[in-house]
Amino acid sequence: MSPRKIGVTELALRDAHQSLMATRMATEDMVDACADIDAAGYWSVECWGGATFDSAIRFLNEDPWERLRTFRELMPNSRLQMLLRGQNLLGYRHYEDMVVDKFVEKSAENGMDVFRVFDALNDPRNMARAMAAVKKVGKHAQGTICYTVSPVHTVDGYIKLAGQLLDMGAESIALKDMAALLQPQPAYDIVRGIKETYGDVQINVHCHSTTGVTLVSLMKAIEAGADVVDTAISSMSLGPGHNPTESLVAMLEGTEYTTGLDMERLLRVRDHFRKVRPKYKEFESKTLVDTDIFSSQIPGGMLSNMESQLKAQGAGDRIDEVMAEVPLVKADAGQPPLVTPSSQIVGTQAVFNVLMGRYKVMTGEFADLMLGYYGECLGERNAEVVELARAQTKKEPITERPADLLPPEWDELTKQADALPGSNGTEEDVLTNAMFPGVAPAFFATRAEGPKSVAKSEAQLAAEKQAAGSAPQGIAGPIKYNVTFAGRQHSVSVEPV
Amino acid sequence: MSPRKIGVTELALRDAHQSLMATRMATEDMVDACADIDAAGYWSVECWGGATFDSAIRFLNEDPWERLRTFRELMPNSRLQMLLRGQNLLGYRHYEDMVVDKFVEKSAENGMDVFRVFDALNDPRNMARAMAAVKKVGKHAQGTICYTVSPVHTVDGYIKLAGQLLDMGAESIALKDMAALLQPQPAYDIVRGIKETYGDVQINVHCHSTTGVTLVSLMKAIEAGADVVDTAISSMSLGPGHNPTESLVAMLEGTEYTTGLDMERLLRVRDHFRKVRPKYKEFESKTLVDTDIFSSQIPGGMLSNMESQLKAQGAGDRIDEVMAEVPLVKADAGQPPLVTPSSQIVGTQAVFNVLMGRYKVMTGEFADLMLGYYGECLGERNAEVVELARAQTKKEPITERPADLLPPEWDELTKQADALPGSNGTEEDVLTNAMFPGVAPAFFATRAEGPKSVAKSEAQLAAEKQAAGSAPQGIAGPIKYNVTFAGRQHSVSVEPV
Repeated sequence: MSPRKIGVTELALRDAHQSLMATRMATEDMVDACADIDAAGYWSVECWGGATFDSAIRFLNEDPWERLRTFRELMPNSRLQMLLRGQNLLGYRHYEDMVVDKFVEKSAENGMDVFRVFDALNDPRNMARAMAAVKKVGKHAQGTICYTVSPVHTVDGYIKLAGQLLDMGAESIALKDMAALLQPQPAYDIVRGIKETYGDVQINVHCHSTTGVTLVSLMKAIEAGADVVDTAISSMSLGPGHNPTESLVAMLEGTEYTTGLDMERLLRVRDHFRKVRPKYKEFESKTLVDTDIFSSQIPGGMLSNMESQLKAQGAGDRIDEVMAEVPLVKADAGQPPLVTPSSQIVGTQAVFNVLMGRYKVMTGEFADLMLGYYGECLGERNAEVVELARAQTKKEPITERPADLLPPEWDELTKQADALPGSNGTEEDVLTNAMFPGVAPAFFATRAEGPKSVAKSEAQLAAEKQAAGSAPQGIAGPIKYNVTFAGRQHSVSVEPV
Repeated sequence: MSPRKIGVTELALRDAHQSLMATRMATEDMVDACADIDAAGYWSVECWGGATFDSAIRFLNEDPWERLRTFRELMPNSRLQMLLRGQNLLGYRHYEDMVVDKFVEKSAENGMDVFRVFDALNDPRNMARAMAAVKKVGKHAQGTICYTVSPVHTVDGYIKLAGQLLDMGAESIALKDMAALLQPQPAYDIVRGIKETYGDVQINVHCHSTTGVTLVSLMKAIEAGADVVDTAISSMSLGPGHNPTESLVAMLEGTEYTTGLDMERLLRVRDHFRKVRPKYKEFESKTLVDTDIFSSQIPGGMLSNMESQLKAQGAGDRIDEVMAEVPLVKADAGQPPLVTPSSQIVGTQAVFNVLMGRYKVMTGEFADLMLGYYGECLGERNAEVVELARAQTKKEPITERPADLLPPEWDELTKQADALPGSNGTEEDVLTNAMFPGVAPAFFATRAEGPKSVAKSEAQLAAEKQAAGSAPQGIAGPIKYNVTFAGRQHSVSVEPV
């Protein structure tokens, strides 16, 4: 029997640099790897969406739509894949449906193939319109389960959610583990359960590597029937990033599974990013492996956020109280998965509770979460806290899909964008400004100046290295000496680094 | 059914710092973790042997026997474990049997419980005496399979070797993967094969993490019946080291296996070494993950050795030729596993072959390897090369156990040691000098001065950090500014690092 082929999604161009280097990688540091990525045999290449759009215009003076067209041109044989936050698109609020349709349409037009659609609360209503839009333009709509652990989250619940996504027309299901919480046994059980319940639906598994355990989870997911798994080329892997692509290949050798990836190509991709990564060192997290989240349930990024909030209030010593408060706030809110934006909303409220008394002051965002303006969570919200939110904000709780409250806005968004100096009058620019109204105007104004990389140049790196290790006099070395020290003779070889 | 208990061997005190920081960790940086390690519920604590003995006297002015007694005292409830290179003990030549007996006897007397006995060539005759000596003193004799990949190494071959070790009285079998080459499928097959062939013999699995894939191998080994696996606490893990202990615990949660480890204790051990590790940063390798060995079969350390040999000869550009030569030399030598010392012997000969013509000049060590003076390999040696070795060295090939050629040497070794200034007249000192005659005399002379750590102090680290991040004027920050740059306003927060 020939081995079963396991598809691989390469993350180097999107989530890997988002997770490892604060989404700072410039297109110019990616283009030279594209030919090899395109020929390596991946199922798809994740290269757009998530935080890359925001980062491109905010930090890099790059037009994200241009980046997408570049990828399309350089990787003609690949499925390009993006991460799309459902009704939020790539921004931070809900958009009216026509904006969602337009965004999907334009993304497809510019080259996108696979849309991984998710919602931070796992509320299917927040994913429905985006998925319908993807299907309408004939592209691949992938429905997403955000994996979390809580008293109300069960394997059966995830299987049920998969069914809702399939009912909405999902062509495949992504099991997305952004906090590296997915342990091998639930990975197996969820994938197995979906396959047994709904037949041979395609399942993609996305895990971060922070806890050091998730390559095993990918193995068990594959054994349970997963079709595609996400990895990042080794030189862009590990820590808060993802498992290394080459390790996945090696993991499956000799088993009844194979990736069919071209190792020669992978090594060239690896060598490319091995040179690029040091240029972004200042943006890198120092985390190598961290299993704390299994006990605290608090993702690393959320923890450091709360710590700096406390410090800013001169209360850095109260982090333990805040960490104890988080599970209570999370439970009151109906057990939302702790990812952007719910992690910030819950974390900030926990800080407020500790500093000012429980729910004495609510953030506007937390009140909105309690009142249903982000959608529904799996758990019941605490009715007393809902009442407090209503009293503090004078807003009524809602039960409908949040976007249903929004009036048509496309025409107004178009007017706003067209009025901006430097806007090029395209629908792409309308969408850019719609999603990032605080950043896009300045970006439009400076776009003509072209991309401004925040990476260090190779010359800078070389100069720094020399400064750090500079010897007053160069030697041609290696030169060997016998050195007697503390009575012991040592053979010493000296050479320039 | 209650889950099956998987034993864990903690490596932080031996192989972890040997692999991550060139074996430089001083006892003073370990003692404060011992109480927690002792109470965490490990199957054993590897804490001695390997390169630690050499390193202690060569770099740290520490008496290794004293270190062992310290561990014994601080971890009264733990099985202490060591790595023992069979007839080589901890040195670099074969010793006559009585020296082997004495070493094992003294190690047991000073507190050792579990002796993991291995031979670089997997020649059982080189392990037999040490294992018999361990059994004689009533301690745990663990026979070891060094895992490698070659045309002559098969799953069946490893199973057969396990049988030979059991025949020699091994109380357990270690499957030792020093190059992180053990992929999940062979891990499963070998462990399963041993269990099916010999019944319920205890199997310990030791993997490095260099290739990023071996936590999966541990999972498959456990599924196949492995009883104990080796890991290192997360703050002393990964890279050329080992898989993180806490990740192993998380990996097994919810499965039919459990480690039974006390997570509170583990976190205290982690926090301890999290503080210690930066003190040894200058000794750390930069390797995070490296899967090259799967294609090249050349361990990272061996590769960098060959590269520096080539550079010293002004032939740094010929590394590709040398890498192509290695498999040929390895095959000629009968496919020895490439570990210390065989990796150096094969690698240096490959360099010589490229620089001077194939086997025009043989190193003494390579000739000895070809003539049987290190023992037998699994493969056939190339008869023509054996003949060349004989011609160049005027030595005859042997087929007997190398140590059988050695005359009694204990009395002479005793005399030598007793004559050294600073020797304390103990059999321990005789053994120290016997194993490291080039280092022990100077160590004895300076021993009274006490340990000399090569770690940076916390004050030094703090000073370096301050120097690196020094601002000309200190600010108390964080201070927030609105900064307008290239037409865009940014909210900027400034604070001292």
